[in-house]
Amino acid sequence: MKNIIAPLLLLVSFATFSQTTNTAKEIKVNRQRIEARIFELAKFGKDSSGRGYRVAYTKGDKEGRAWFINLMKKAGLEVTIDYAGNIIGKRKGNIPSLKPIAFGSHIDMVPDGGNYDGCVGSVCGLEIIEILNENNIITNHPLELIIFSDEEGSLLGSSAMAGSFKHEGLKNISNSGLTVSEGIRAIGGNPDSLKSIIRKKDDLEAFIELHIEQGGILEKENIQIGVVEGIVGIEDWEVTVEGFANHAGTTPMNIRHDALLSASKLIIAVNEVITSHEGKQVGTVGKILAQPGAYNIVPGKVVLGLEIRDLSHDKIMQLFHEIEKRAGDIAVAGGTKITFKNQLLGAKPALTNKYIQDKIMQSAKALGFSYKYMQSGAGHDSQDMALIASVGMIFVPSVGGISHSPKEFTKATDMANGANVLLQTILAIDKE
Amino acid sequence: MKNIIAPLLLLVSFATFSQTTNTAKEIKVNRQRIEARIFELAKFGKDSSGRGYRVAYTKGDKEGRAWFINLMKKAGLEVTIDYAGNIIGKRKGNIPSLKPIAFGSHIDMVPDGGNYDGCVGSVCGLEIIEILNENNIITNHPLELIIFSDEEGSLLGSSAMAGSFKHEGLKNISNSGLTVSEGIRAIGGNPDSLKSIIRKKDDLEAFIELHIEQGGILEKENIQIGVVEGIVGIEDWEVTVEGFANHAGTTPMNIRHDALLSASKLIIAVNEVITSHEGKQVGTVGKILAQPGAYNIVPGKVVLGLEIRDLSHDKIMQLFHEIEKRAGDIAVAGGTKITFKNQLLGAKPALTNKYIQDKIMQSAKALGFSYKYMQSGAGHDSQDMALIASVGMIFVPSVGGISHSPKEFTKATDMANGANVLLQTILAIDKE
Repeated sequence: MKNIIAPLLLLVSFATFSQTTNTAKEIKVNRQRIEARIFELAKFGKDSSGRGYRVAYTKGDKEGRAWFINLMKKAGLEVTIDYAGNIIGKRKGNIPSLKPIAFGSHIDMVPDGGNYDGCVGSVCGLEIIEILNENNIITNHPLELIIFSDEEGSLLGSSAMAGSFKHEGLKNISNSGLTVSEGIRAIGGNPDSLKSIIRKKDDLEAFIELHIEQGGILEKENIQIGVVEGIVGIEDWEVTVEGFANHAGTTPMNIRHDALLSASKLIIAVNEVITSHEGKQVGTVGKILAQPGAYNIVPGKVVLGLEIRDLSHDKIMQLFHEIEKRAGDIAVAGGTKITFKNQLLGAKPALTNKYIQDKIMQSAKALGFSYKYMQSGAGHDSQDMALIASVGMIFVPSVGGISHSPKEFTKATDMANGANVLLQTILAIDKE
Repeated sequence: MKNIIAPLLLLVSFATFSQTTNTAKEIKVNRQRIEARIFELAKFGKDSSGRGYRVAYTKGDKEGRAWFINLMKKAGLEVTIDYAGNIIGKRKGNIPSLKPIAFGSHIDMVPDGGNYDGCVGSVCGLEIIEILNENNIITNHPLELIIFSDEEGSLLGSSAMAGSFKHEGLKNISNSGLTVSEGIRAIGGNPDSLKSIIRKKDDLEAFIELHIEQGGILEKENIQIGVVEGIVGIEDWEVTVEGFANHAGTTPMNIRHDALLSASKLIIAVNEVITSHEGKQVGTVGKILAQPGAYNIVPGKVVLGLEIRDLSHDKIMQLFHEIEKRAGDIAVAGGTKITFKNQLLGAKPALTNKYIQDKIMQSAKALGFSYKYMQSGAGHDSQDMALIASVGMIFVPSVGGISHSPKEFTKATDMANGANVLLQTILAIDKE
């Protein structure tokens, strides 16, 4: 945290807490209410077969948002929709001059998606407001619950707020069938005024996002809380392997220039380079096209998609250069040519704030939860928010590591654990 | 050769030769005439940009056939078109009771094809008739020059003659846009009467095909004549590798079930198994599809095409079982499942006749040509003809090993060499 609150103000804060029946450390979120709301929210945007299509800007998204706004208002929040369609619920603090502590996530989903990605952070954020209300706790800092618009499509809401949204993207057709521009209007925003919602750097005291892991690490290692160190950077390359297409019957093995054979060696080399280093980096060849692509023709050309992710951009590039070197050897051995073209679609790594990490870890520890420092391999609203605020992220386990799927599931206990850690983290930041 | 001609007849044969000015061993084909005709034939079926589309049943094919039939008639052949559209030119022998010695090839081409595949055997076959005419040589055996219909599409003419044509194929749309059935009618055949043209086993004394290699072995090794031992058998398998599709960002390397990684190992194993054995076998993975196929998803399923070719079907299956075994190990190591499904599209190997091989080799040797015993990796009309006749095949070099391409090229000298070997082989068979 870059802003240390003066000791004088802390006294005011403690004074407030002392008036409540429960001490702040004793209060707990309501697990049943969290789960009930996850189920209720899941009803919006279902197709006739019961699968989830609460895609941003669709009827389901609009209905889900209306339901959520209504709950926020009932919880006493002062709700506004900004020009990007972000739903912002404000709760006054004891000291209005302090910067707000913000938290939240999103409620839109990918087509045929699950009911936990984004929703857990949103529903639990609301739960924290209500539990503070029920315990008559007023924090020193104002609080903001933010439900970002169109996270799954383009990280629209958070990137607009951080000033990193690329305005060419307004013309893109979103999964709703509307352009992003039309979509923004459909949820009450105004695409022409996006620039006016950009928040100044450190306008917020912190932004903290509770989210499902979307991976299988926590479940596999039987750990309750993930303290997220950052959101990985991503670089993508289109890799072209050029050999020589030839008749598979008439071309002896020793005179072939088989592009697919070289490509296969490269795919294995990618795996070897990535796994031969310590750390959490991942490297993937997820797509492949061999031409001409027939049983009876030695492939003359193969195009691959290579992706590397890590918390350090330098490490991504170091791994890439190692792969490039291996590719050179493979090309020479196979009589092929291998070229790499960066797709310029990547994302820079976004590190979370060390102070907030500590608060999350201490809260988890105090609550008796097992925890693990980890990275987020997937993108999140926090990624853009890190450009303008000190950010923290809390992960809870995803059963089977499955996400973006109707099979996505997180146990009520795990959601409640995450919400309790989020609550204590907010209170800890508020106190200092 | 299964039919040995009585010594008495041979005397008649020698008597005939002795009446000519040149002895049979001295006569040579006319290289210039061969090349001129290759160029002339190439004019039929060209598109506006000068590329070859003399695809069976098209206008170009019909025009090329008419031009060729005219030349055959001028050379004194008795020309008929059978119900499959095969052009058969007959030349009487001294001993009408002997079985005909047949030779020839095809003049249709693949779309955007070359001017040598099939045409060399056809044009050189005609050259042999003319050179015999010019030297007043009448063979003991009747001769048949056969220009098979639709070789490139479906080996129609030869398979109809051999009784191996699958009649369901008549409904298929050929590259001409016509169904095969319509195509047969377009070139003067009758699809309803194909069965009546089936030749009885050993109705012919021999069938010999001169063809360009369509591979790069002869050119690379600087050898003039290929003595073809047989046309390889082919087996194709669809190979499915099943892993588990997962988020490429959130799934650590050590818990992935990456179908493409296993597939890559399998492609390398195919290469290792095929090349670790002595012999001319080839094994190819020519097609690959990874699903879902995105930069950011670990592939959950990969489908490959595996093809193995060899002169021995037993060897093909032995190699396949080795690959299957390797696949088992790869699947266990990668947490994937690998299954093989034979596509039932394969061809059984077709061996050429040992006696004719000897005659080809001896003719090449006597003419002072370097030669090499080799297999044909590509399919040919000879493959079906081997079902009903003793077959021989002569290969001449393809520059750069390129075929089925406008770049296909064989030097005039090489064509003439092949034609001289064919001529001497025919005369040698005729004499014995």
